[in-house]
Amino acid sequence: MKRPKKLAVIGLSLLIMASQMVGCSTSNEAKGESESKTEIAQTSSKKPKYIFTFIGDGMSYTQVNAAQVYNGTIKNPDKIELDKLGFTQFPVVGSATTQDATSFAPDSASTATAISSGVKTHSGVIGLNADKKTAPESITEKLKKEGYKIGVVSSVSLDHATPAAFYAHSESRSDYYKIATQMSEGTVDYFGGGGLLKPTGEEENRKDATEILKEKGYTVTNDKDEILNLNNESGKVYAVSPTLQDSQAMNYNIDAKDGDLKLKDFVSKGIDVLDNEDGFFMMVESGKVDWAGHANDAMSNINDVIALDEAVDVAVEFAKEHPEETLILVTGDHETGGMSIGQATTGYDTAFDILSNQKMSYVAFDELINEYKESTKAQDAKIEDLLPIIKEKFGLMKADEPDASKEENANLVLSDYEYNKLVKAFEETMKDAENREEGTENEILYGGYEPLSVTLTHIINNKAGIGWTSYAHTGVPVPVYAMGASANNFSGSYDNTDIFNKLVEVCGLK
Amino acid sequence: MKRPKKLAVIGLSLLIMASQMVGCSTSNEAKGESESKTEIAQTSSKKPKYIFTFIGDGMSYTQVNAAQVYNGTIKNPDKIELDKLGFTQFPVVGSATTQDATSFAPDSASTATAISSGVKTHSGVIGLNADKKTAPESITEKLKKEGYKIGVVSSVSLDHATPAAFYAHSESRSDYYKIATQMSEGTVDYFGGGGLLKPTGEEENRKDATEILKEKGYTVTNDKDEILNLNNESGKVYAVSPTLQDSQAMNYNIDAKDGDLKLKDFVSKGIDVLDNEDGFFMMVESGKVDWAGHANDAMSNINDVIALDEAVDVAVEFAKEHPEETLILVTGDHETGGMSIGQATTGYDTAFDILSNQKMSYVAFDELINEYKESTKAQDAKIEDLLPIIKEKFGLMKADEPDASKEENANLVLSDYEYNKLVKAFEETMKDAENREEGTENEILYGGYEPLSVTLTHIINNKAGIGWTSYAHTGVPVPVYAMGASANNFSGSYDNTDIFNKLVEVCGLK
Repeated sequence: MKRPKKLAVIGLSLLIMASQMVGCSTSNEAKGESESKTEIAQTSSKKPKYIFTFIGDGMSYTQVNAAQVYNGTIKNPDKIELDKLGFTQFPVVGSATTQDATSFAPDSASTATAISSGVKTHSGVIGLNADKKTAPESITEKLKKEGYKIGVVSSVSLDHATPAAFYAHSESRSDYYKIATQMSEGTVDYFGGGGLLKPTGEEENRKDATEILKEKGYTVTNDKDEILNLNNESGKVYAVSPTLQDSQAMNYNIDAKDGDLKLKDFVSKGIDVLDNEDGFFMMVESGKVDWAGHANDAMSNINDVIALDEAVDVAVEFAKEHPEETLILVTGDHETGGMSIGQATTGYDTAFDILSNQKMSYVAFDELINEYKESTKAQDAKIEDLLPIIKEKFGLMKADEPDASKEENANLVLSDYEYNKLVKAFEETMKDAENREEGTENEILYGGYEPLSVTLTHIINNKAGIGWTSYAHTGVPVPVYAMGASANNFSGSYDNTDIFNKLVEVCGLK
Repeated sequence: MKRPKKLAVIGLSLLIMASQMVGCSTSNEAKGESESKTEIAQTSSKKPKYIFTFIGDGMSYTQVNAAQVYNGTIKNPDKIELDKLGFTQFPVVGSATTQDATSFAPDSASTATAISSGVKTHSGVIGLNADKKTAPESITEKLKKEGYKIGVVSSVSLDHATPAAFYAHSESRSDYYKIATQMSEGTVDYFGGGGLLKPTGEEENRKDATEILKEKGYTVTNDKDEILNLNNESGKVYAVSPTLQDSQAMNYNIDAKDGDLKLKDFVSKGIDVLDNEDGFFMMVESGKVDWAGHANDAMSNINDVIALDEAVDVAVEFAKEHPEETLILVTGDHETGGMSIGQATTGYDTAFDILSNQKMSYVAFDELINEYKESTKAQDAKIEDLLPIIKEKFGLMKADEPDASKEENANLVLSDYEYNKLVKAFEETMKDAENREEGTENEILYGGYEPLSVTLTHIINNKAGIGWTSYAHTGVPVPVYAMGASANNFSGSYDNTDIFNKLVEVCGLK
């Protein structure tokens, strides 16, 4: 993984500090870089002309800091030092609570609606008030009227809850076709990232939503070269990643191959397409932070937080050219998984370096399990067959392995407790879905995921010092990092609907 | 529990906004109360003369929001609505990372030293640099030189790590006698709250530290009337709670009886004692948030967060009289327990109302278990004996109880899975400590706590929708809420050492 260019953020912060510092004085004398990064930079109070709203789905303080602990541990294995993400060095951070109209542990439909439209609605509802009928005017609809161009980017499918809340209105987030057909209704100039889950409807007999987009004048392409050639003369665009993985989503960052388009590329192209004299608003979601959180897969989670940070860096580079007119927000819609940096058996110790032994996401590993299941008779299946691939993809090994005695592998050797968990999970995995054991114990152990995969991520996570409490979303508040035009307005502790309210205010909208 | 007077904070925020608003414009037209609370109030950039630093030990975003979810659920059981704490409505919130020189999941000694003295040191070290020898000058020492009076208040013993870091220097936090004898060295004018763990040393043969305090002119008292009569003519004071509970700590707030002195009373008295023309600095710790976190006891945790909020309210009332000169910070030193609002078996549901059935802390329940153990022969012990008291103190009941069929008890009925856990825990609890089972399974289940008590808090927490990952501290960042003089300097994401650096800066210290 490449590290974000942190100096970009620092440079910009200092530039803003130097040119626009007002109010309380700050002294820079004789301070090291790490401190100057965190000075209170009073940012411009101008109306933002270029607005980026980055959403790490399922990303809260822990997910952000886990990425910093991981990067720090990899960079300096012998030190206790964070390697900071670019966006945590923004001059302002707010804290947003996320409960919706029906739950303290809300879903992405209602929370993205809170951010896009300023209303508390039911879990599962996109862009509608709590009556599930009337539609609030969203920030994208308001800004469109003011002449801003609008971009919606996501690493998951574009009809998924978070991106949908920025252009659609639907009583159910699951009505993917209804949502997809609203893509062409005119609010959004640039879509980028994932594909569509039901482009021809539930029964695959409706007019293709991508065809409707084309008829309305959108260029729809999943050709890498064509995407890379897009510019501000390309008109309306839907740029789909050529390398989709699961559920029409882009690859997990950990599974991406050299040359694959990444989230940052879709932001970069978004800027090229949307750039115009009247400004633009771009929502960018790193959606698989959430999916990895649901599956309790820390390494995939961390990698997709890093993908988000790299995407934010692109916006920061753009902001250098327009420092007084660009507002960048980075937030989460809710926390997923009840992730923590610390768990019962490791106490005060962490060993995030061992996470680097995980070479693929749980989804990619599920595919390997499926290959084994398809090629092996049930009565012949034995965990010994999979131990080599477990070692290859997670680094984990049995104590009687020759490599287990090597000092550098000490943390990767399975304890009896862990190996027994693995054997039990393997047995569950080898059962057909209808024969798997039900009940609370398995609900807690596997959460409906492939037992062997989720047990492997649990084991490597726990060895690293990462714990999880849930396979669902939680009621933990989320950070709102802000830099640039009117960033100061995003300080303080507030509700997620206030992100919309503040945007409306700083843009002088009604 | 009484609710904090929120209007105090709102009133003050509006007052500050009205009188001192500078920089970016904010509009108040046609906005409801809930929104006006969260406006960016530009606070005074004056040098603070009165400084309060509140520390919720083990308190991070989740602990704070759990208290808000709990209060909201109790107040409006049919709605999904937070009942906000006073300090979350402060105009500024920063976010601080907490790793120390030796761990990403640090302890209170090193983190309190980071806050008090701006240095990263080893876990377990009080007020010394990472060399464990040289002492940085702490904020209290610096301010003392400037003429400020100094107060140190804690709900746990005053020789405990967090309070100690504001007046002592010791290679080991466990050297309680060495720490206690430093109380009298002159930095601190007012100590309030808990007692001392080893006032006469490890072997109880040293000169009593409280005697030394008296010789140095401190009034030492644990008489309620005498404490309530303290004022700014009382001189130097060490006011000890007359109702200490475990380990020389004040009562858990949940166990406090009418008339017991509370954390807020020691803050109130601190103001009375310290008030003078040259200003003061008071550190106030709600220390048992941490202890309840270690024990995974959510209800006790929430109650001690509420006790902290009530104590903060006292400072906010004081700030009304000195709005331009008072700075109030509320932070945590680290997170404890990996607490989350959401867990595997409840998914997106929470039911925090059932927590109100818990009538005492795990510590108080441990005492009931001990009484039973002392009065019952091992071979006669059976869980049925304890079911009535479990029902009385936690509300939990077996499915075959007559009350179990009542609709209002639906959430309190133990599932087979839960009851089996309870039986297993009871069996462990009835064993002498040396006969208890070791191994990973029990480490995860009980974390060294009384098996029956911790299983009961786990069950009621999980039913409410609260999960934990650890019995130790974690690497989750902590919030830094700020209001008043120079509060804006505490915005942004930074390291806990920067809390000290920012205090030094805003006070114009070197």
